[in-house]
Amino acid sequence: MKIISTVSELRPALELLRKEEPKRPLVFTATLGCLHKGHESMFSLATKSGGWSAVSIFLNPLQFSDPNDYKIYPSNLEQDLELCKKNQVDLVFAPSKEEFYSQKPLLKMQIPSLTDVLCGLGRKGHFEGVMYIVARLLCLFMPDKALFGKKDYQQYRIICQMVSEFGLPIEIQSVETVREDDGLAFSSRNLLLSPKAREAAGLIYRSLKMGKKAVDEGERDLSLVSEIVRDIILSNSLNRIDYVDTVEEKTLRPLKMLEKKTEKTKETTRFLLAVAVFCENTRLIDNIECSSS
Amino acid sequence: MKIISTVSELRPALELLRKEEPKRPLVFTATLGCLHKGHESMFSLATKSGGWSAVSIFLNPLQFSDPNDYKIYPSNLEQDLELCKKNQVDLVFAPSKEEFYSQKPLLKMQIPSLTDVLCGLGRKGHFEGVMYIVARLLCLFMPDKALFGKKDYQQYRIICQMVSEFGLPIEIQSVETVREDDGLAFSSRNLLLSPKAREAAGLIYRSLKMGKKAVDEGERDLSLVSEIVRDIILSNSLNRIDYVDTVEEKTLRPLKMLEKKTEKTKETTRFLLAVAVFCENTRLIDNIECSSS
Repeated sequence: MKIISTVSELRPALELLRKEEPKRPLVFTATLGCLHKGHESMFSLATKSGGWSAVSIFLNPLQFSDPNDYKIYPSNLEQDLELCKKNQVDLVFAPSKEEFYSQKPLLKMQIPSLTDVLCGLGRKGHFEGVMYIVARLLCLFMPDKALFGKKDYQQYRIICQMVSEFGLPIEIQSVETVREDDGLAFSSRNLLLSPKAREAAGLIYRSLKMGKKAVDEGERDLSLVSEIVRDIILSNSLNRIDYVDTVEEKTLRPLKMLEKKTEKTKETTRFLLAVAVFCENTRLIDNIECSSS
Repeated sequence: MKIISTVSELRPALELLRKEEPKRPLVFTATLGCLHKGHESMFSLATKSGGWSAVSIFLNPLQFSDPNDYKIYPSNLEQDLELCKKNQVDLVFAPSKEEFYSQKPLLKMQIPSLTDVLCGLGRKGHFEGVMYIVARLLCLFMPDKALFGKKDYQQYRIICQMVSEFGLPIEIQSVETVREDDGLAFSSRNLLLSPKAREAAGLIYRSLKMGKKAVDEGERDLSLVSEIVRDIILSNSLNRIDYVDTVEEKTLRPLKMLEKKTEKTKETTRFLLAVAVFCENTRLIDNIECSSS
């Protein structure tokens, strides 16, 4: 496994890979480090697909709206590299902040309809920072395929839109969320949970499943579905809700009411039931894909 | 000369060129059409450098803040293609508006320190539109080198910054402004000038040269230099000034005073004396590079 820490070394290293097996696709996964089973599932997907597996590990300060959140975000490069090796990653790019931001970022990107909803409301500038780093990484790696986890569904959609608008020849693939036994989505932030908060966090996915069940059983009023989710999450007093929202899957536009099932001609509406919850002080997000039929 | 009008045909056509001579660099020039000697000089530079010469012709509605300005902007594709052929262009990409914007643009880009000064003040959204189209074209063509004329100096600087921040492996080269006998910079908009306005427009470059002369002769107060320029332009009553400005060459930050020449230790300051002038109703821009020593 090749480990690279500077931009200038990265390009020739990638070129070498491409020369070695010109037909073998380059599959890229961008991470903030503190790798867990969610990342492992992406790495294994890259390897299984027969591609070169390239990974970036970079805790991007630009995407943290709260400086304290950045400071306490867990990181452990040595452990991360071990895990990459174990998962047959071929190349890791782990630059320092100084290396990656040697030039002050002046460029700003947004997709207001996608960046200013859901997590974008509470975390001002977060997705602008994500777009910036991902655009740079994609331009650097120019992979054939890039993987993004569905836990960060909004991020996945934003990246899809960005890549499609730029017309970059990169396939963006979403990867299923990996969960603990009680359904809690794997996240680096889980490490920040106290045992009691960890227990409370287990309610998040349970609530989403109950919300989806209500839809599947015929509930068309999505504000009532959100109510169900909200009540279950708040049944533990350590939980505080940032948002519970239902949005159209592609556009992330709010969706509050499904059309009656009896209207035969209508198509299936695919939507997302998404939440952000503070468990004590740790903000966790999750979502579940739903459809109107 | 290959003429291509759809995005889906463009990629394989570029791949063919690259395969034919893998070492031959691809040199790209983006244009709005209505080609003139300024463009010809870029095409000839591309050919002389030994590269493939690729050109886009697309009147990008997104960069026109004034819909009427877009409507009256001259265009003549047939003539443009003739001129490309004459200048040994290898590939022309001339998509329709519908083809290029088949997807509604949602993504927004800015570099406030560069896009919100000079022409960005009077033409809100103009450079955002330029960045959008150029980013897309560069991602599509992925040329080794892209040429931008110095008449649109601000545009050139913005593109440099954008490409550098994304880390795209593309060399951005500026090309000297080509001028008529009386110094007027070639521009598609010159076609919109009445004979009288055409005469008045001749004052623009003359005023810039006089401004630069004042600097070369020792004037350190750049507001006085701007005054000289302003007076010469306004000596014809058909001219109206949008702006006369002096800005630091790289950052485009305002520069109003040069340090005294006697201070030996100081470095040379390179700056731009830039103007936008309405000759009757036609807005023309021009600039001249100056330095403090």
